[in-house]
Amino acid sequence: MFEVIGERINTSRKLVQAAVADRDVAYIIEDVKKQQDAGANYIDVNAGARIGHEEKDMRWLINTIQPIATIPLTLDSPDPAILEMAFQMVKNTPMINSISLEKDRFDAMMPFLSGKECKVIALCMDDSGMPAASDDIVNRAITLVEELNKIGIPTTSIYIDPLVQPISTDVNKGMMVLDAVWAIKTRFPEAHITGGLSNISYGLPQRKIINRTFVSLMMTAGMDSAIIDPLDSKIMATIRTADMLLGKDNFCMGYLKGVRSGMIES
Amino acid sequence: MFEVIGERINTSRKLVQAAVADRDVAYIIEDVKKQQDAGANYIDVNAGARIGHEEKDMRWLINTIQPIATIPLTLDSPDPAILEMAFQMVKNTPMINSISLEKDRFDAMMPFLSGKECKVIALCMDDSGMPAASDDIVNRAITLVEELNKIGIPTTSIYIDPLVQPISTDVNKGMMVLDAVWAIKTRFPEAHITGGLSNISYGLPQRKIINRTFVSLMMTAGMDSAIIDPLDSKIMATIRTADMLLGKDNFCMGYLKGVRSGMIES
Repeated sequence: MFEVIGERINTSRKLVQAAVADRDVAYIIEDVKKQQDAGANYIDVNAGARIGHEEKDMRWLINTIQPIATIPLTLDSPDPAILEMAFQMVKNTPMINSISLEKDRFDAMMPFLSGKECKVIALCMDDSGMPAASDDIVNRAITLVEELNKIGIPTTSIYIDPLVQPISTDVNKGMMVLDAVWAIKTRFPEAHITGGLSNISYGLPQRKIINRTFVSLMMTAGMDSAIIDPLDSKIMATIRTADMLLGKDNFCMGYLKGVRSGMIES
Repeated sequence: MFEVIGERINTSRKLVQAAVADRDVAYIIEDVKKQQDAGANYIDVNAGARIGHEEKDMRWLINTIQPIATIPLTLDSPDPAILEMAFQMVKNTPMINSISLEKDRFDAMMPFLSGKECKVIALCMDDSGMPAASDDIVNRAITLVEELNKIGIPTTSIYIDPLVQPISTDVNKGMMVLDAVWAIKTRFPEAHITGGLSNISYGLPQRKIINRTFVSLMMTAGMDSAIIDPLDSKIMATIRTADMLLGKDNFCMGYLKGVRSGMIES
């Protein structure tokens, strides 16, 4: 079934930043519990927004979240030293967010990831910038999978992020990423496809219907994970419904549970 | 862009049956206008429910609708004599609903369709019943396209209905029809894919979210038309949004128009 990476514990969000600055344990615990109750499969933890505080903030966040976490964490930082520290603190096999083909990031992340048991998000980004065509995305994904395989990360632990771009700037940006997802899943059936979705609706009104319709299109193409707010019950309802329609919900149990809990409504 | 066949003028619907029995011109005209305003591309007209009255009811309905119709009609009957009568009455090239591979229906419809200028809905049904696998759907579609081509109906005028079946009876029924749509569009890129959608949710609660999520999955696979109620603004919003995301809405004009009119809401 689809894996939801809960995006809320991120110091770029104002209330989280305040809670982290104030060392407000109750706030963070309640937010994490809400995400878990809503059906998140991972809790993303990003402490990057308070310049100069990332290491201490990340340590405090992991210490705060770990005791009540029933699901694994997604350790979200560009700094391998901070990731290494966090990696040693977690109980369950974590997901690392993220590696890319940008030279500095790639060179920093590869030694950290080498031989580690973890999931990893691999961004289809390189030093030339965002991908301009479907083939760019696919070729970058192939390079990332091959390089990660070489250092002992199996394909089944790799979460490719094809980098969703705004449809308002170019009406073909949706098909570009959908075609790429199809091609990547055809080449690497064991790889996962993940990523944020909200870029697709940048610059347009009523963004949420665009985001949740897009996730169902992406799921049809092979996306099986996303970095979203699990408290957005409408996108969660779309995901549970699409999972069922794609044959991934035996006896419709997940769907029916969502209806009973009130999360799924017509 | 996606073509909506408005399903409301059907005497199996209680209020329409009463309006037809009472020859209530105002009711029918208002319903048709509402469907047109909501963005329907065809108005389906089915007068089959009052046994023994189909010919007269169909004649009255066409006479009533034709003067105010700004879009073509879908003539919906299993009886070639009634279709021939209706065909002679309409101004715009109509769509015929429907032919299938069931021997009686096929043998009756082929002489009627031969050499006619019309669109036609072709059901993937034969005398062995509903398709049991993706290949069944595809093979029936191939036979229908080939047979219709032989009598002068070009592929671009053919609307294949793959026959959606309930996911509650078998969790694979969604993928079965999605795979078939992909295969049919790959083999016949010019053919259209249409059909009703609501069978998918038969037996499950909160059916509308299933139906509208399913249409977006089917559109990703290649469905470009459906027989629906255009007054269901949530499914229409999903269709307009998916059309944009699939690159079929230049400059997002259709989407933005839907937002301005209030039809599309987050």
